[in-house]
Amino acid sequence: MIQAGILGGGQLGRMLLQQSANYPVVTHVIDADPSCPAAHLCHHFRKGSITSFDDVYEFGKGLDVITVEIERVNVDALEKLEAEGVRVIPGSHVLRTLQNKILQKEFYRDHGILSSEFIVTQNKNEILQHKDLLPAVHKAATGGYDGRGVQVIADESAVTLGFDEAAILEKQVDISREISILVAVSQSGAFKLFPPVDMIFDPDLNLVSYQLAPAELPEKTLWKAEALALGVAKAFKSPGLFAVELFIDNKEQVLVNETAPRVHNSGHQSIEGNYCSQFDMLWRILLNYPLGHTDHIMPAAMVNIIGAPGHSGPVYYRGLEDVLKIENAFVHLYGKAETRPGRKMGH
Amino acid sequence: MIQAGILGGGQLGRMLLQQSANYPVVTHVIDADPSCPAAHLCHHFRKGSITSFDDVYEFGKGLDVITVEIERVNVDALEKLEAEGVRVIPGSHVLRTLQNKILQKEFYRDHGILSSEFIVTQNKNEILQHKDLLPAVHKAATGGYDGRGVQVIADESAVTLGFDEAAILEKQVDISREISILVAVSQSGAFKLFPPVDMIFDPDLNLVSYQLAPAELPEKTLWKAEALALGVAKAFKSPGLFAVELFIDNKEQVLVNETAPRVHNSGHQSIEGNYCSQFDMLWRILLNYPLGHTDHIMPAAMVNIIGAPGHSGPVYYRGLEDVLKIENAFVHLYGKAETRPGRKMGH
Repeated sequence: MIQAGILGGGQLGRMLLQQSANYPVVTHVIDADPSCPAAHLCHHFRKGSITSFDDVYEFGKGLDVITVEIERVNVDALEKLEAEGVRVIPGSHVLRTLQNKILQKEFYRDHGILSSEFIVTQNKNEILQHKDLLPAVHKAATGGYDGRGVQVIADESAVTLGFDEAAILEKQVDISREISILVAVSQSGAFKLFPPVDMIFDPDLNLVSYQLAPAELPEKTLWKAEALALGVAKAFKSPGLFAVELFIDNKEQVLVNETAPRVHNSGHQSIEGNYCSQFDMLWRILLNYPLGHTDHIMPAAMVNIIGAPGHSGPVYYRGLEDVLKIENAFVHLYGKAETRPGRKMGH
Repeated sequence: MIQAGILGGGQLGRMLLQQSANYPVVTHVIDADPSCPAAHLCHHFRKGSITSFDDVYEFGKGLDVITVEIERVNVDALEKLEAEGVRVIPGSHVLRTLQNKILQKEFYRDHGILSSEFIVTQNKNEILQHKDLLPAVHKAATGGYDGRGVQVIADESAVTLGFDEAAILEKQVDISREISILVAVSQSGAFKLFPPVDMIFDPDLNLVSYQLAPAELPEKTLWKAEALALGVAKAFKSPGLFAVELFIDNKEQVLVNETAPRVHNSGHQSIEGNYCSQFDMLWRILLNYPLGHTDHIMPAAMVNIIGAPGHSGPVYYRGLEDVLKIENAFVHLYGKAETRPGRKMGH
């Protein structure tokens, strides 16, 4: 039986494991927290740090295939495991590129993939040498996640908000909408696209607040978006599931924002909304089965359940009954014991 | 957080647990086999016999709610737990009635629920006193399961095949088809019916071989079937999920065959085929949430994956790739290490 490992035991791992029980696979999870959302659903849990070379290497030795539920993992260990014959999906080179925003932007540029104009900075004062890019977004090369490490620099007066570390300064796009397209790439190079999803962000938390699927786009915009998403996924030359986040500007130009090489918040509605969910799809990729059917069953909306302002501590849920009264509404809670303002608790 | 227990860790428990991770619930499973299909997917596994009073009682003490994935459990322990305030769904009285075929048939008769004519026998020779019932089916009162403990007595010469133990002799129905209707009954007494399912049996194994959902029935037959299924579920005066198996004879008369007060093989297609699956529905019942939407998304077929003839021992799967190539075909394997001819290995 195939031994499959997941780096990270959060909600993405949890939902992956729910789906894994359909297939002949033995599941392993590593996470620093033994009570993380995925811990009790795998065959073998290992307490360890996913950013530690030793922990990741020891975890991965002897497994057949490894995937990630987050990009910030120890890539050196994965590279060594790969060299030793463990299938790492997405490949370690993909993770190395995507976990650094500078490398990611350079990758798009080098592969002719349309993305917003940018320059690399080492400290915030360098922003002043590129006033022509303003208004812009300053993004720390590493460590950013769910809105952290990202700062809008509207004009010169905001330069002090920037980062004194390796970062990119990206010309701000006149965003008319943000969409995401999931692209599945099989081990044999076959691919399938999920229908695009409209993402509506919470401006304060910089988290997906809710999304609508499929995104209704003018035909030509859809073509551009699909071509771009597919271009990104193919450029990586790796099997995997790629969530390509795209900006559509007010001239219907489509630009890549960023890519996550894994199951993604923007695919959660696929569990009930599409024939093959993103979680099922990733198992098909990992286990080398034919790719699933990505069409949506009917239009769907996905709303994140976010920790309420003003309450940190043991979680409790209010209004679950009212939600479950709605025909064809489904709740997925992530089993996190503690809530805090803005934390993703479910969807 | 609600502490929920499942008696039995087979495939039904496994699929229940896949769905449980959507809800705020801590899951407990008891089974004699620590490597059973459900063992690794629950929060707390306890090795023990589900037919032992002590094991079931010790398991259930302190839980909030208990359900079963099989009827043959220690009902005395459940009754005591119920008296001590543990919610047992279905109620212990339902299990007591349904785990004995004599009590079950008497229950239908006493509640005016149409079922085939029968008499109670204590040994096979008594069959000779009821030749008018032949051809008939002799069914041991207890211990029968998936075709065991059931014997067709076509005529007098077959009497020797009968059972020398408490049993029922049921007049054989001229079956034109066999259908199943799942009925959900909430803790507050609300109910929902799933669309009927056509069950096609393997005549040798007496297992569901495949089924088609929804069953296409003449309108009046559908009404009769739904009324009968609902009548059965309501007569039990207990929350739960009831799989009511029905015969339709060649005069379009509808008769109850038997009832399983739990998730059931005849509802497996509901995982992908219906908005709310039978597994989701049972959690809604157990956790006292509103019932889900039972409509089918599109017509579905469900095929059991049965251990092949001539091979007992470690399982291997052949043809999985070909199955997964079919658009909208989904595979659910039960994680059983050993196969044997006729064993349910997946669907």
